[in-house]
Amino acid sequence: MTVTPFDHPFLSGLLGDEEIAASFSTKADIEAMLAFEMALARAEADEGVIPAEAAELIAAKLATFGPDVAGLREGVTRDGVVIPALVRQLRAAVGEPHSAHVHFGATSQDVIDTSLALRLKSVVGVLDARLGALIEALSQIEARDGDIQTMGHTRMQAAIPVSAARKIASWREPLERHRERLEAVKGDVLVLHFGGAAGTLEKLGDKSGAVTQRLAGALGLRALARPRHNERDGVVALASWLSMVTGSLGKMGQDIALMAQSAVGEVKLASGGGSSAMPHKVNPVGAETLVALARFNATLVAGMHQSLVHENERSGAAWTLEWLLLPQMTVATGASLNNAQALIASLSFARTSG
Amino acid sequence: MTVTPFDHPFLSGLLGDEEIAASFSTKADIEAMLAFEMALARAEADEGVIPAEAAELIAAKLATFGPDVAGLREGVTRDGVVIPALVRQLRAAVGEPHSAHVHFGATSQDVIDTSLALRLKSVVGVLDARLGALIEALSQIEARDGDIQTMGHTRMQAAIPVSAARKIASWREPLERHRERLEAVKGDVLVLHFGGAAGTLEKLGDKSGAVTQRLAGALGLRALARPRHNERDGVVALASWLSMVTGSLGKMGQDIALMAQSAVGEVKLASGGGSSAMPHKVNPVGAETLVALARFNATLVAGMHQSLVHENERSGAAWTLEWLLLPQMTVATGASLNNAQALIASLSFARTSG
Amino acid sequence: MTVTPFDHPFLSGLLGDEEIAASFSTKADIEAMLAFEMALARAEADEGVIPAEAAELIAAKLATFGPDVAGLREGVTRDGVVIPALVRQLRAAVGEPHSAHVHFGATSQDVIDTSLALRLKSVVGVLDARLGALIEALSQIEARDGDIQTMGHTRMQAAIPVSAARKIASWREPLERHRERLEAVKGDVLVLHFGGAAGTLEKLGDKSGAVTQRLAGALGLRALARPRHNERDGVVALASWLSMVTGSLGKMGQDIALMAQSAVGEVKLASGGGSSAMPHKVNPVGAETLVALARFNATLVAGMHQSLVHENERSGAAWTLEWLLLPQMTVATGASLNNAQALIASLSFARTSG
Amino acid sequence: MTVTPFDHPFLSGLLGDEEIAASFSTKADIEAMLAFEMALARAEADEGVIPAEAAELIAAKLATFGPDVAGLREGVTRDGVVIPALVRQLRAAVGEPHSAHVHFGATSQDVIDTSLALRLKSVVGVLDARLGALIEALSQIEARDGDIQTMGHTRMQAAIPVSAARKIASWREPLERHRERLEAVKGDVLVLHFGGAAGTLEKLGDKSGAVTQRLAGALGLRALARPRHNERDGVVALASWLSMVTGSLGKMGQDIALMAQSAVGEVKLASGGGSSAMPHKVNPVGAETLVALARFNATLVAGMHQSLVHENERSGAAWTLEWLLLPQMTVATGASLNNAQALIASLSFARTSG
Repeated sequence: MTVTPFDHPFLSGLLGDEEIAASFSTKADIEAMLAFEMALARAEADEGVIPAEAAELIAAKLATFGPDVAGLREGVTRDGVVIPALVRQLRAAVGEPHSAHVHFGATSQDVIDTSLALRLKSVVGVLDARLGALIEALSQIEARDGDIQTMGHTRMQAAIPVSAARKIASWREPLERHRERLEAVKGDVLVLHFGGAAGTLEKLGDKSGAVTQRLAGALGLRALARPRHNERDGVVALASWLSMVTGSLGKMGQDIALMAQSAVGEVKLASGGGSSAMPHKVNPVGAETLVALARFNATLVAGMHQSLVHENERSGAAWTLEWLLLPQMTVATGASLNNAQALIASLSFARTSG
Repeated sequence: MTVTPFDHPFLSGLLGDEEIAASFSTKADIEAMLAFEMALARAEADEGVIPAEAAELIAAKLATFGPDVAGLREGVTRDGVVIPALVRQLRAAVGEPHSAHVHFGATSQDVIDTSLALRLKSVVGVLDARLGALIEALSQIEARDGDIQTMGHTRMQAAIPVSAARKIASWREPLERHRERLEAVKGDVLVLHFGGAAGTLEKLGDKSGAVTQRLAGALGLRALARPRHNERDGVVALASWLSMVTGSLGKMGQDIALMAQSAVGEVKLASGGGSSAMPHKVNPVGAETLVALARFNATLVAGMHQSLVHENERSGAAWTLEWLLLPQMTVATGASLNNAQALIASLSFARTSG
Repeated sequence: MTVTPFDHPFLSGLLGDEEIAASFSTKADIEAMLAFEMALARAEADEGVIPAEAAELIAAKLATFGPDVAGLREGVTRDGVVIPALVRQLRAAVGEPHSAHVHFGATSQDVIDTSLALRLKSVVGVLDARLGALIEALSQIEARDGDIQTMGHTRMQAAIPVSAARKIASWREPLERHRERLEAVKGDVLVLHFGGAAGTLEKLGDKSGAVTQRLAGALGLRALARPRHNERDGVVALASWLSMVTGSLGKMGQDIALMAQSAVGEVKLASGGGSSAMPHKVNPVGAETLVALARFNATLVAGMHQSLVHENERSGAAWTLEWLLLPQMTVATGASLNNAQALIASLSFARTSG
Repeated sequence: MTVTPFDHPFLSGLLGDEEIAASFSTKADIEAMLAFEMALARAEADEGVIPAEAAELIAAKLATFGPDVAGLREGVTRDGVVIPALVRQLRAAVGEPHSAHVHFGATSQDVIDTSLALRLKSVVGVLDARLGALIEALSQIEARDGDIQTMGHTRMQAAIPVSAARKIASWREPLERHRERLEAVKGDVLVLHFGGAAGTLEKLGDKSGAVTQRLAGALGLRALARPRHNERDGVVALASWLSMVTGSLGKMGQDIALMAQSAVGEVKLASGGGSSAMPHKVNPVGAETLVALARFNATLVAGMHQSLVHENERSGAAWTLEWLLLPQMTVATGASLNNAQALIASLSFARTSG
């Protein structure tokens, strides 16, 4: 099935991002969830919450565990989350007498949110690196074409000439600011989620802090003083950031599409899209795609903000809404950065503008 | 890759809809596009625009055509649409001297939008049937439980008693109105899109009307007096309708989740979700899912309305934005109807409420 | 205070609409609410629910009633709705022994939603008339300029020539469809809301149907078989329609702004905006405003769809959300239609395009 | 006219915020715009760009200037911005020979965006102080009621007991994070906008940097290395922040409305809303209002993200869209904070829960 272009056999060539999407594969998700459960067992064993041999057995069994995906699907249909079914499979794999030591003290949201955080760690790393590369590419265009005079346009009318350098700076500098903003965003996203049934880690007693510290350390995530199951500002800040990145790239795309108009000709694109009806055309497909992805993320960001109204200790409704939105927004941002890089590589400012 | 729950190996158990999603598979899309090209050739041959033997050859070759999907993907990356690459493959399959008679006078948007219309025809049929079945199920619950008194709540406080029948009617009647609204929506969606390069069918000369009529007839779509490539109100009306359906179902889900609260107990759910940490719980997963899908579609509908600002004769940006949104909204609506049907099947009003 | 351009002393010159906004004035609202209460008393007296002399006294007193607005404001702060405070003021004005016959059997939502319906009746009349006038103006431009050849543009690149008539038709025909759609929308908006505390009219006993019929007749609204307090599809369908109108006008605005570009010059605007820095410019302000209002309504429509999740018999949260969105969307649509009319009046296609 | 509750004579009692709204009054706007023009003249005189006596005369005349608001309104209708008309009025007030020294080298957007920045400076100060006060109020409730055991609820079902302290912390800690985030947001919002016609300050030659520094210093705003007319990430980051604040407060409101349900009774509200039909009710109006304002801002934030696609050196469409959204979002946030403070003041946890 191919409900969205992100997963689509041919539309993903334009709108997908295999590298980012890989982080949202079932494989990556299950690996991260198993990593959580193994690290949890180890941390609990180190603190004497479960026997050391339980942790060793869990590590051994989970290292080679392969899920029954049909069973997981059935579990999600019934439970709304995959964890009850997954934990049942894991406990069966571990067997007695240690099955009950699997997932001890944890809850579905601990595993799912931490799995997401683990995968977002690599995702934001990729996005940050691409931002860096794009900034560098823009600097190179500026070095090459920056002295070319183009027409500045305000309110869709020619105003006064501006240099290409000025244009390019207005594309590059927001990206530099986004990189700076990402540092703060990461602080509330790349965190361990560990709270147990209702965020109180009640089964761990006075070991809750120590297990949390060990678990976070093992997973390379920040330990929080208190679990934040129902405080969603971290992922919403990330979503806002993603949409700001695609929005700034959409502005660049819109500018390039306008400058590349047949009657304007202020920039040239070395490559562009062909038409089935008009072979003479060179369509600014990459530029348009940036606009489309900008408007897409600007749409979805609203739903992420709606999900802040996360009732009680855990909201099935608001949390599920995040799943429907955030991965897509992330892939859209990746696709936008890839498109932008290719677009800039094909762009040159015209020495004599139309 | 599994960027959205709609296509996800296990999350689709809750949030996907295989039947609707099948209409958005590559297979279904290519079949519909080939149907367009075959019917076009036949209609053009019948009107003497292309030779009869060209149409026969095209029909024969396309009936057994299998696309090079990697080539299509590459084409989309370059052209922003699949049609130039697909038409090249089709023309190669047909060979000389008739290759140029494939896709004659048509443009990318004709094929893509008509393919969508063909597939939406079955999609809206499914949705309509499910609405009918859900209305029927609600009527049955009303017949069984309608005389039970429940507490009416206004502004989240107990107000005065109301009958279960009154509650159920407030869920059922909006669905009945949505079915009526669907009739009008279909009129502007299940249409043939056929306009050529810029909506003028300039290559068909005085045969444009006759070819349009034949083509629409062959495909079972309504012929328009004038192509509407850049008039997107039809699909936006559909998107608005989809979001209204999920919104009404979300209201029902929210009501049921509230009535099923532990301290309230006005309804019982024969089945519900389990918890990995608290085996005693019965979570109203289906009800919460209806709320999540309502808020999801209510989010995405905004982007469809943004896409009405479809500049010039064809907007790469606005049109691409539709692709990113409409299929998902359709599947979300299908999933919502399926969840609602299952939820109602498990629902009973409690004779003694809490 | 002037929080939005719609109410702003100088920004409303561009973005406001005095005629539509008048329907959302306190004066219009209170008049409509008093009309409801007077007609209710009369209908109840005619059906023997309250004494005839009570209805006469209520009619007499309310005809000259002037509210204590500060008291109403205080009431809204406390109650979330104006009706408890207003009814207290009305009952004090009517005095004993008939004070309790004011608002008998009704609830806040009956009065507020019916007041809105009464005012929307004139609003949709105005919008419909403006659509008609705009369609007529477009027809006139088509008659005058329709044979001029302009360049068709697809994906922001020159494609093939199209006639001005073709361009204009793609602006006019969606408006014609919107007028047709409005008929269906009206059917679920221009309705009487009358349900009492929890939608059951429990205080009226077997007179509820008859009172409803009389009340609807007196107010010129459609009587519903059952109250729809918590079924919000009517206003959401209206909101969707409003956003479709502004979206179609935004498309026209975007087209005109693109055709009026200095380097393109396919249309001329007899009037346009001046710049404080560049006196030579003629900015396509009206065209840009259409785009801004389209994107505005396309944003807000999402919130109206969110409000479909209207829990229980009455949701304070979802209902209040409507108040924050729908009036603005209505005024934005009015402003868009006025801007469009002025823009078309100043538009001419250039005989020799750039 | 009273198109939105924010400016409404009685609805503003619940949904308005006089203190924040005052920053969006015409008076405050004009004062800030005059402050810009006076400081600009002074900075330019200090750098020898205009004569010192011109700056003195401008300061004197503008200090007592009262605008012809009808003339400004007419100007906005024509120009899309108020500045051309305002500058004409200012130049007439200053008279010859110095009229041309008013607004020298500046453009509309410099004045409008800087006026907004000046007013947002006080707005964010107020919001920050209210956040601080609310955090303090929550700490006091925690000190008083924190040891009370309440039922934790996950997925709308009773889970395990949690302390009131745990509940309150999940409301308070996001607010503490929002305060930290505000510091970064301010850095890109409380800035001087000064770029001239197309962002190049071309009329100031080599004095552009020095004038910028002086002007920023005089206005108490940060000077930017380069103007950012068409880089809108600063205001979009602010909008995202506003919506995150109201979203977190909406979560608190939703929790309180759920805990205050008649059948639950885990919290009591000392004051609440009355009903016109059911005098016995105490409606959690403040809590519902927090949810409504959260969903409102979560809706509007999407439009601000759309406005990042700000084409060319200045977009009439995207910039106007901001005016339609940002002030409302700001007032909604202020109203939400005020409602939250009042709600917390009336809240107590029940020692024996239902």
